[in-house]
Amino acid sequence: MSKLKLHPDRFFDPNPAVRKIAREIYNTIKSMPIVSPHGHVDPSIFAENKPFPNPTQLFLIPDHYIYRMLYSQGLATIEELGIPDVNGNVYESDPKKIWKIFASNYYLFNGTPSGVWLDYEFSKVFGIKEKLNEKNAFKIYDQLQAKINSKSFLPRTLFDKFNIEALTTTDAAYDNLEHHKSIKDSGWKGKIVPCFRPDGVTDLSNPKWKENLVLLEKSVGYKITNYKKFVHALEERREFFKSMGATSTDHGVFSPYTHELTLKKAESIFQNALKNKSTGEDAKLFTAHMLMEMARMSIDDGLTMQIHPGSYRNHNEIIYNKFGLDKGCDIPMQTEFTFNLKELLNKYGNNKNLTVIIFTLDETAYSRELAPLAGHYPAMKLGPAWWFHDSIEGMTRYRQMVTETAGFYNTVGFNDDTRAFVSIPARHDVARRVDSNFLAGLVAKHIISKNEALLLAKELTYNLVKKAYKL
Amino acid sequence: MSKLKLHPDRFFDPNPAVRKIAREIYNTIKSMPIVSPHGHVDPSIFAENKPFPNPTQLFLIPDHYIYRMLYSQGLATIEELGIPDVNGNVYESDPKKIWKIFASNYYLFNGTPSGVWLDYEFSKVFGIKEKLNEKNAFKIYDQLQAKINSKSFLPRTLFDKFNIEALTTTDAAYDNLEHHKSIKDSGWKGKIVPCFRPDGVTDLSNPKWKENLVLLEKSVGYKITNYKKFVHALEERREFFKSMGATSTDHGVFSPYTHELTLKKAESIFQNALKNKSTGEDAKLFTAHMLMEMARMSIDDGLTMQIHPGSYRNHNEIIYNKFGLDKGCDIPMQTEFTFNLKELLNKYGNNKNLTVIIFTLDETAYSRELAPLAGHYPAMKLGPAWWFHDSIEGMTRYRQMVTETAGFYNTVGFNDDTRAFVSIPARHDVARRVDSNFLAGLVAKHIISKNEALLLAKELTYNLVKKAYKL
Amino acid sequence: MSKLKLHPDRFFDPNPAVRKIAREIYNTIKSMPIVSPHGHVDPSIFAENKPFPNPTQLFLIPDHYIYRMLYSQGLATIEELGIPDVNGNVYESDPKKIWKIFASNYYLFNGTPSGVWLDYEFSKVFGIKEKLNEKNAFKIYDQLQAKINSKSFLPRTLFDKFNIEALTTTDAAYDNLEHHKSIKDSGWKGKIVPCFRPDGVTDLSNPKWKENLVLLEKSVGYKITNYKKFVHALEERREFFKSMGATSTDHGVFSPYTHELTLKKAESIFQNALKNKSTGEDAKLFTAHMLMEMARMSIDDGLTMQIHPGSYRNHNEIIYNKFGLDKGCDIPMQTEFTFNLKELLNKYGNNKNLTVIIFTLDETAYSRELAPLAGHYPAMKLGPAWWFHDSIEGMTRYRQMVTETAGFYNTVGFNDDTRAFVSIPARHDVARRVDSNFLAGLVAKHIISKNEALLLAKELTYNLVKKAYKL
Repeated sequence: MSKLKLHPDRFFDPNPAVRKIAREIYNTIKSMPIVSPHGHVDPSIFAENKPFPNPTQLFLIPDHYIYRMLYSQGLATIEELGIPDVNGNVYESDPKKIWKIFASNYYLFNGTPSGVWLDYEFSKVFGIKEKLNEKNAFKIYDQLQAKINSKSFLPRTLFDKFNIEALTTTDAAYDNLEHHKSIKDSGWKGKIVPCFRPDGVTDLSNPKWKENLVLLEKSVGYKITNYKKFVHALEERREFFKSMGATSTDHGVFSPYTHELTLKKAESIFQNALKNKSTGEDAKLFTAHMLMEMARMSIDDGLTMQIHPGSYRNHNEIIYNKFGLDKGCDIPMQTEFTFNLKELLNKYGNNKNLTVIIFTLDETAYSRELAPLAGHYPAMKLGPAWWFHDSIEGMTRYRQMVTETAGFYNTVGFNDDTRAFVSIPARHDVARRVDSNFLAGLVAKHIISKNEALLLAKELTYNLVKKAYKL
Repeated sequence: MSKLKLHPDRFFDPNPAVRKIAREIYNTIKSMPIVSPHGHVDPSIFAENKPFPNPTQLFLIPDHYIYRMLYSQGLATIEELGIPDVNGNVYESDPKKIWKIFASNYYLFNGTPSGVWLDYEFSKVFGIKEKLNEKNAFKIYDQLQAKINSKSFLPRTLFDKFNIEALTTTDAAYDNLEHHKSIKDSGWKGKIVPCFRPDGVTDLSNPKWKENLVLLEKSVGYKITNYKKFVHALEERREFFKSMGATSTDHGVFSPYTHELTLKKAESIFQNALKNKSTGEDAKLFTAHMLMEMARMSIDDGLTMQIHPGSYRNHNEIIYNKFGLDKGCDIPMQTEFTFNLKELLNKYGNNKNLTVIIFTLDETAYSRELAPLAGHYPAMKLGPAWWFHDSIEGMTRYRQMVTETAGFYNTVGFNDDTRAFVSIPARHDVARRVDSNFLAGLVAKHIISKNEALLLAKELTYNLVKKAYKL
Repeated sequence: MSKLKLHPDRFFDPNPAVRKIAREIYNTIKSMPIVSPHGHVDPSIFAENKPFPNPTQLFLIPDHYIYRMLYSQGLATIEELGIPDVNGNVYESDPKKIWKIFASNYYLFNGTPSGVWLDYEFSKVFGIKEKLNEKNAFKIYDQLQAKINSKSFLPRTLFDKFNIEALTTTDAAYDNLEHHKSIKDSGWKGKIVPCFRPDGVTDLSNPKWKENLVLLEKSVGYKITNYKKFVHALEERREFFKSMGATSTDHGVFSPYTHELTLKKAESIFQNALKNKSTGEDAKLFTAHMLMEMARMSIDDGLTMQIHPGSYRNHNEIIYNKFGLDKGCDIPMQTEFTFNLKELLNKYGNNKNLTVIIFTLDETAYSRELAPLAGHYPAMKLGPAWWFHDSIEGMTRYRQMVTETAGFYNTVGFNDDTRAFVSIPARHDVARRVDSNFLAGLVAKHIISKNEALLLAKELTYNLVKKAYKL
C-alpha cells in the first residue's frame, strides 16, 4: 500500500533558497478566494443541489482527460468506460466495473496534471489516505460513495467550502439560463455567472447550425430571416446575458482570422447558409467577420471578449460519430496570430475600453506573436496556459516565454476551464504553486524583490482576473 | 594536459537533493541490457567480425556529426577529411593527417552530444586517460590503434561486452539480408535483427527508383509490371524480413501526409512512374498512400511501423553531388501532424493491435500535436527525441513537453539511431542519465514518489521498448 | 522606499554550486572591453558630444520598449508620452509630466529586460539609490538631471567609461557618414564604425523607395536609370563605407527568401519600380535577388553580411500613420529558413571567406533549422538572441537550443542592437551573466570542465564577435 499524502512543498523548486521563498509567497495566497472566470461546470448541479450519483459518475464519466488516457493504452473501448453514445445509450452501466479499470491503471497518470489533480481531490476533498490502485479500488470507491452521500458533499456546500467567489459557466447564445435563474431565485448566495458563447450560431460549418438558429429564433421570439436580424438577435441575447450577470463572451474558433465583410457580403453569405448552401470559404469569412462584430458589440456593452482558437475538433471521426463532441479527440494545430488578428486589433485594439483575451494551444506563439501583441495593444490581454498546457511544466513555460515581453500586467490570472467541479480547488492550487515558484525564482535570481513578488502573487491570483473579467 | 575522467554524477541536476535521487534511480538501471530497436549499424561488421581498421575509420569517417562540425568551421573540405566521393575515390587517405585535424579541434565539440559520446567512448570503452587535443593526437591515436588490434575489441566481443540484448539494423526492401543470415548461421548468439525500410521503392521522386525497383524484382523473382504486383512484392518481402527476425518497418518521409488512393489512381501513378513520367504531386500522393498500405499490412503481419518525417535531405547540393547521401547536409523543416496523420489514424488508429511510432525533428509538435495524438489513439506511440534532439537538453525538453499530455506509457523508450557501433553504450548511458534525472526532478518536486520513479525508470529503459517493438 | 541595489550574484542560478562557478567565470570577463557590432545609436551624439537634454529625453523618448509597455496598459496615448508625430509635432512637451507617468508605473517592468536594464542604468551609471516610483519621481528626475548636466556624463566620456572598444551604427546606403567623418576628424579615439544597410533602396515595397533612390543617386553623383547602374552604385557605396571603417552590412527583410534572378528579369523589375509599377511579387523577388547579390559582393569586399528577417513592421497602422516607424508596433511572425536560405547557401555557403550571420525572432527555428544549418555550412553563423529574446530567459533558451547542434563556435557573441546608448553596459552585463551562468551549469553537470568554461567565456564575450565582424 502506498500512502496518499500531499507534500506541503509540492511542485516547488527543490533548491532550498527558492523553495523557502516559494512557500512564503504561496502561504500569502493559498487561502484567497477562487475566481473562476471561464469553465464548463453544468449550472444545473447548483440549481438542483442533489448528491453526485457515484464516484465513477463524479470523476471519470465527465472527464475526457481521464478516459482518454485509458483509451490510448487500449485498455478499454469508449463504450466499456460507460460513456453514453449520441443516442444516450450506455453500454456499460456498472460503475464499479469501470472504476476497477480506472483504479488498476491509475499509475498511467503519473507525471500528468490529471494525476496531480486527482491526488488532490482524493486527499484534500475526500480525505482518502491511500493512493488508488487495483487492490484498494473498491475500498476507496466505498469511501468516496459514503462522502458523496453525506450532506457536506452537496454541490452548494462544496462551492462554499472551496471558497469560490465567482464561477462562470459557458452557455449557448440561445440558452434561457434557467439554472442561473433558479439559483438566483433560490436565495443561495453562490455567484454563478453565465458567459455568452455564440459559436453554435456563428459557425456556419456546424452541421447543427440551422437547428441552432431555430433555437436562437425561439429565444428572441422572432424569425431571423436576414443578417441584420441575426445581428440584432445576438445583441439582444448579449443584453439578456448581461442582465443575468454575464461579464464576458467566448469564441471557440478554428482560426483567429479576423476580417470585416461589407454588409452586402455578410447578407449574401447568411442567405446562402439559410439555403444550406454555405461553402467552407463562407464559413471562414463569416466567423472572421463575426469576431469583428463581437469586438464592436463588446465596446458597446462592456463584455470582455475571449478568443480560443486552434483546436481541430473531433479529429477521430469514428468516436465523434458514435459518441459526439468532447470525447478527448480534439487535437491542437499550428496557429498564426500576427496576420490573423491584425484587422481586429487595427480597428479596435487601440481602444482601452475593450478587453480581448487571446488563448492559444500553440505555445510557439507565446514569445513570438502573443506577448509582443499583448505588450503593445491596449485592448489585448493574454489568457493563461490553456488546456493541455494547464499543467506544471505548461504554466512554467508560459511565464518564462511571456513575462519578459508582455510583463505580468498584460496577462489575466488563471482559468480552470473545467467540467469537473470537484477539481476546481486542485487546479487553482497548482496554478498558485507554479506562480509562487516562478516568482520565487525571480527573487532568488535577484530579478525582482520579495516585496514585489508578494504583491505580484496577489495580482496573478486575484486582482488581474477580477479586473480583466470585471467580476 | 587535461585529464579525461567521467564524473559519476555527470548530467544530473547540480541540486544535491535531485542529484541524490537521480543517482539512486540511475544505479538501478545502468546495467540493464541495451535494447536498440532502431539504428544504422552495418550488419556486415558482425558477420565478418574483423578488427576495425584504424581510429579515423572507426570514429570519424562514418560519423557525419563529427566531420560536419569540422567542415562548418572551414577547417577542412569534405575530401580533406577522407570521405570517399560518389565514385569511391578518396582524396585524403592518410588517417593520421585527418586525425590531427580532428584532435586539434576537439574543443569544438564542447557542449555537444558528440563531445559527450566521444569522451565516453575514449574513456570507458578504450581506457584513454587524457582529453584529446593537438599535442596528444598521435599518442592517443596509437593507444586506440593498439586496442583496436586486440581480440577483445572485435565487433562481436564488444557487442557482448556492451550487454546488447538486441540490435536492429535498417535494410532496404530488396535486401537479401545475407549478413543477418550469415550471423545466424555462424552460431554466434548476438541478436541482430533487420528492419524493413522500403523508402527506396515507395518514393517515386528518388532518382534511383527504377534501379531500386529492378532490385525488388530480383528479390521476389518476378517482374513488377503493375501496382498490384508491387504491393504483393512488398507483402512478400515483409514476410521474408519477418522470417529473418524483423519486428518493425521504418518509413523516412518528407512529410507525414497520409491519404488512401483508389486502386485505379494508384495504378495510374505507378504506370507513370514506370514510364519515368512521375510528377512531384504523384510522388507525394504515392508516399501518402503507401503509408496507408503499410499500416494495413502491419495490422496483418504485426510489424511495428515507424514514421520518420521532416528532414530536407541533401540540402547542400554541391556536397550531395560530389559525395552522395548522408554527409551531414540533411536539415530539418517545419512539420505538420494533426492534418497529415488524420486519415491514417482515422482508418487504423483505433486498432489496438497496430503500433505506429511517430518521430519528429520539429520539437514544436511535441506538446502541440504529437502528445495529444499519442494520448488519444490506441495505435499511436511517440518515438524518442530524434537526431539533433538526441542530446541532454533535447531529451529533457522531450520529457518536459510530452509527459504531461501523453504520460510515460505512450512513449517507447530510447533509440540510438546510430551508424557508429562503438557509440551505442555512450548514447544509452546519456539517455538513462537524462531519464533518471527527469524522474528525480519529479520526485524532488513531490509529483511522483520515489517508488514510482524506480518503476518508471525500468519501463523507460527496458520494458516499453521491448513491448513497442516486440523484441 | 525601496532601495535600489544590484546584487552581485544577480541572474545566476540559485544553486550554490552553479552560482559559485558562474561568479568565478563572470569575474574573468566582466571587465573585458565591450565590442558592439550591431546597434542603432545615433552617431551624431558622439560627433556633437553635447549633454543629453533631460531624463525623459534620455530614457523614455528613444526607447519604444518603455513607452510600448505604458501604452499597452492604457495609461497614456503615444502623444501624451511626448513622442513626436510624423510632422515633428509634439503634443506633450513637459518632460516632468511624462516622467511622472513612467515613474508611477515603473512596477510594470518587473520581470522584463527593460526593468533589469533600467535598474542597472539608474544604479550603476547614475548612482541612484532608490527604486523609481510615484513618490520619488521628481527627486530622482532631479538627481539624473544633475548628472546629465555634468561633464563626466558627456557622450564621449561615457563611451570611454563604458570601456567600449568598438561601436557599430546602422546607416542607410546613401548616408554620407558625416558624423562618422567628423568624429574621425575630431581626433577623439573612440571607434564608431558604420554598417551598410541598403534596405531603403532594395525594398521596392517601401513607400519611400523612389525618394531613397534619389538620395542614392546624389550619394554616387549619377542617375540610376537601370539595374546595372543600381548594382554599381551599391558596390561603390559599400566601398565608401569600407573606407570609413565599415566591416559589415545588414539586411532587414520580411522573409529570408533568397533567389537569383536573371539579369533580364532583374532589369525588368527595376524598370517597373522606376515607373511606380512594382507589384508585391516584384518586391519579394527583388529582395530575394538582392540578398544573393549582397552575398556575392561580400565575397568580393569582405564585409560580413547580416540578415534580420521575420518582423511584421508597423502592424498598428493607426500608430504608424500618425507617428511613423519604430514605435513598438513591429510584431514577429513565423519564419522559415531551410527552404528560404537554400539558394544562397548552395551558391555561396560553402565559401569559407564569406560570413553570413542569421538572426531570428522565431525561436522555433533555433534547434530545428538554424543550428543545423550553422552546424554545416562554413559561411553561415548564427546571430545572438534578438530583440524580444535579448533577455535572461531568451538568451538562456538560445544557448539551450543552439549549442548541442551548432556548438559555441558557430555563434558570434552578443549584439546589444540598441538605440539607447546608456543602456549598452547594462545589456552586455546581462549577456555576460547569462553566458557565465549557462557555462557554469555545464560545468556543474560535468559536461565541460571549468577550464574549458573559462576559455569559452572569453570566446563568447570577446573573441567570436571580433572574428565574425572583423572588428
